[in-house]
Amino acid sequence: MSTVSEFDADTAVARVAPDAYTAVATDRWNVGSVPNGGYAMAIAQRALLARLDRPDPLSVTAHFLRPMQPGGVALAAEIVKAGRSTATGMVRLVQDGSERLRLLGTATDLTGSDRGLVHHTSGPPDLPPPEDCPRGSGEMPGGAARAALGGRFDLRVHPDHAGWARGEPTGQLEIAGWIRPADGREPDVLLLPVVVDAFPPTVFELGITGWVPTLELTLHVRARPAPGWLRCVIRSRYVSGGLVEEDAEVWDAQDRLVALSRQVARVPRPRR
Amino acid sequence: MSTVSEFDADTAVARVAPDAYTAVATDRWNVGSVPNGGYAMAIAQRALLARLDRPDPLSVTAHFLRPMQPGGVALAAEIVKAGRSTATGMVRLVQDGSERLRLLGTATDLTGSDRGLVHHTSGPPDLPPPEDCPRGSGEMPGGAARAALGGRFDLRVHPDHAGWARGEPTGQLEIAGWIRPADGREPDVLLLPVVVDAFPPTVFELGITGWVPTLELTLHVRARPAPGWLRCVIRSRYVSGGLVEEDAEVWDAQDRLVALSRQVARVPRPRR
Repeated sequence: MSTVSEFDADTAVARVAPDAYTAVATDRWNVGSVPNGGYAMAIAQRALLARLDRPDPLSVTAHFLRPMQPGGVALAAEIVKAGRSTATGMVRLVQDGSERLRLLGTATDLTGSDRGLVHHTSGPPDLPPPEDCPRGSGEMPGGAARAALGGRFDLRVHPDHAGWARGEPTGQLEIAGWIRPADGREPDVLLLPVVVDAFPPTVFELGITGWVPTLELTLHVRARPAPGWLRCVIRSRYVSGGLVEEDAEVWDAQDRLVALSRQVARVPRPRR
Repeated sequence: MSTVSEFDADTAVARVAPDAYTAVATDRWNVGSVPNGGYAMAIAQRALLARLDRPDPLSVTAHFLRPMQPGGVALAAEIVKAGRSTATGMVRLVQDGSERLRLLGTATDLTGSDRGLVHHTSGPPDLPPPEDCPRGSGEMPGGAARAALGGRFDLRVHPDHAGWARGEPTGQLEIAGWIRPADGREPDVLLLPVVVDAFPPTVFELGITGWVPTLELTLHVRARPAPGWLRCVIRSRYVSGGLVEEDAEVWDAQDRLVALSRQVARVPRPRR
């Protein structure tokens, strides 16, 4: 591609002062009328990496305070600690004088991260080839809202998962699938916050419908993804206290673990 | 008890300005010469909850910048957002003008959190009764360092786990056990950061020795623990990129899920 990808155009940050950036959020990453939380996080992560002058996120946490809206965004980025191998910083994402998201993260340079001990007790999700996996739905259950976000990705869900989209919730709190940008952009670490938040909520498989708002999301990056398809699996084990955790793993085309994430989200009451 | 517990004495924070607190860290929670990271986080969490005027942490993330030392601590606590059901804040833990830990967290009131949907795909760890579980070691493998922290808890490890303490690393990255304060204090939400960080690192079971420094730890709280023993299980699945994740679950005496945590730590090279 000689043109700028959708993702890079829609998450670009411009430095306006040593500790301040601006960006313009689009509505192309919406779910219903609100931009996806992972998209807001991806914008803030770009400001973090720019401020810290490090290429790769290592551990990044976002607290979602109020929904970001399409439009202009101001980002205040602080260096918390600039160390030798890692640096830590904080970003406030503000619109109309109101803070929408606060991000605290440590960044590094993952060059050579493949060296050293590898001990995995589990591997990439077992998926039929992409052509045998149905395309992920951009709809909420019951047609509650359309997701423009669905148009940004080529997302192929395991045929046994996402039963809710067929009107048959499985009761299994797991969803796995293939994912890559629809416009041919190759995956990289910048894309990961929106990748781990792009799949439908696991609790849809309990017959729950409606919004499952993320309160907090933490992303741990282990390696830069290779070009090609990513495979993701998202699992929840515990719905209680009005909350659910969603644990995501991201694997690349070379079977390497790229990232782990966990988010905690509010669970609406099931429909009776 | 009519006296103040070790934990409450050693994590007390005093308000010195609307957004500033002080505390005095002791060496009773040390591992080697450095206070345990969960102990530093527990001090910062107390300042967070005091500043937000909410009783219960919901999701709290700490980035460990430099080791806290025993001695005086200054805490700067900011209200990020005071909402109706939750509030979000940030705490900087500073010693000698140097920031040691930064904490970003959302707090709430968990009264009534037991109501609503409960859907668990897993339960508390399967443990023999406490009297059939050996006491957890306060030592590092190979006698590298003593842990004063070990004296703060009555910690009983599953007899099949912690093989490294018998000189027989199991290769299984899982450790489960019973835990409660040694002085009879009952568990509560304030204690959770140090509970989830009190067990020996899972990678000791790979024959790794030495420090496994935590970079970041996120705690999700679901319920206030009932009095009595807590059961914890800590699992790692992926050692790669020089890092390992440790996922902890905390269950109370009424078989309720109290908290989930995940930390990412640096893995030293294995000893040959």
